[in-house]
Amino acid sequence: MNQKLPNKISNAVIRRLPKYRRYLEDLLNKKIYRISSKDLSELIGFTASQIRQDLNNFGGFGQQGYGYNVKELYEEIGKILGIDKAYIVVIVGTGNLGQAIANYTHFYRTGFIVNAMFDVNPKLIGLRINGVEVMDSEYLQDYLKENSIDIGIICTNKESAQEVATKLCEGGVKGIWNFAPVDIDVDEDIILENVHLSDSLHTLAYFINHPQDY
Amino acid sequence: MNQKLPNKISNAVIRRLPKYRRYLEDLLNKKIYRISSKDLSELIGFTASQIRQDLNNFGGFGQQGYGYNVKELYEEIGKILGIDKAYIVVIVGTGNLGQAIANYTHFYRTGFIVNAMFDVNPKLIGLRINGVEVMDSEYLQDYLKENSIDIGIICTNKESAQEVATKLCEGGVKGIWNFAPVDIDVDEDIILENVHLSDSLHTLAYFINHPQDY
Repeated sequence: MNQKLPNKISNAVIRRLPKYRRYLEDLLNKKIYRISSKDLSELIGFTASQIRQDLNNFGGFGQQGYGYNVKELYEEIGKILGIDKAYIVVIVGTGNLGQAIANYTHFYRTGFIVNAMFDVNPKLIGLRINGVEVMDSEYLQDYLKENSIDIGIICTNKESAQEVATKLCEGGVKGIWNFAPVDIDVDEDIILENVHLSDSLHTLAYFINHPQDY
Repeated sequence: MNQKLPNKISNAVIRRLPKYRRYLEDLLNKKIYRISSKDLSELIGFTASQIRQDLNNFGGFGQQGYGYNVKELYEEIGKILGIDKAYIVVIVGTGNLGQAIANYTHFYRTGFIVNAMFDVNPKLIGLRINGVEVMDSEYLQDYLKENSIDIGIICTNKESAQEVATKLCEGGVKGIWNFAPVDIDVDEDIILENVHLSDSLHTLAYFINHPQDY
């Protein structure tokens, strides 16, 4: 279908894509290869029309009367997300959170390859995490000059996050995944994705106190 | 202003509250006690009208010609979120992520008190994290019977998450903060807040590949 794609896909649609993919992966693990739009809708909790609209942004995938081919849709969404290729990442800050992320990305093997890790803490420098040695953060700039890195992951404290972000931007990363509990400034052409854990926890507190809004 | 409050506050509004609070906290740290709606809008990146509308859901706080009293608004949002009181939490799964969360909540001291931690790994059982000893997960049910716990935090792997969630629900928690990379089922009256790290990472990948949508 030679449908005209809109200029800009909305943020809300984009953020639903990984969720679709996650559910499709679960279906594949359960050896379910075909699903009606109604069943998919009940599973994910969006209306069938919402799912159709979302997917239509990328050309549309369901077939009337057949529903969705789970494997095909799973793979297509992976391609749309761009996780059919590999990304070279560095992690700055290798405390518990940085190590959790290193183990996490390693475990999930969805193409995010940790090439280097950095910390300022002498107790952590030299440590090997999944075979990658933690380097002294003072070498971050040189490392970025000599290596082409796609994504920088910031797991430092609040105080160091901006300085690290600036070095990552100057070092040519395409995106930054920031876990430091602070909003950082990055160059306009760098993609910044924040994980503000406290926002999530505080939202949970809100709903506990206002269950009627949940 | 004796304004009629709407029945249900939208999810989008609620999720912006922690962000407002975070920015107001930064202002307080910088000893800025008063801010015009225009300046606040530029800082946070929402329009002044959006901010006004959001806050009007809770009664409205700005004064025409004065702007916002930073400390007052910060405290009011804290009260609305319900983080002016303490929550007793347990963490299940004390690998790197569970330890990071334990240290995080401990460090931030916003009233989330880790009373107990559980793991199945004999290497972790008995370990003390911020003065709290990691217990064997087999005691989770008994512990929940004997203690009144507000929030259960799930930092286990995908495979154990549902079983842990069921025990937490039966054990009477009010809310669950789930970090396991799986969507879990909980009782209807339990608040569930998921942190799906892979969704965030995959969204970052999308934007790196489609910078025009960013």
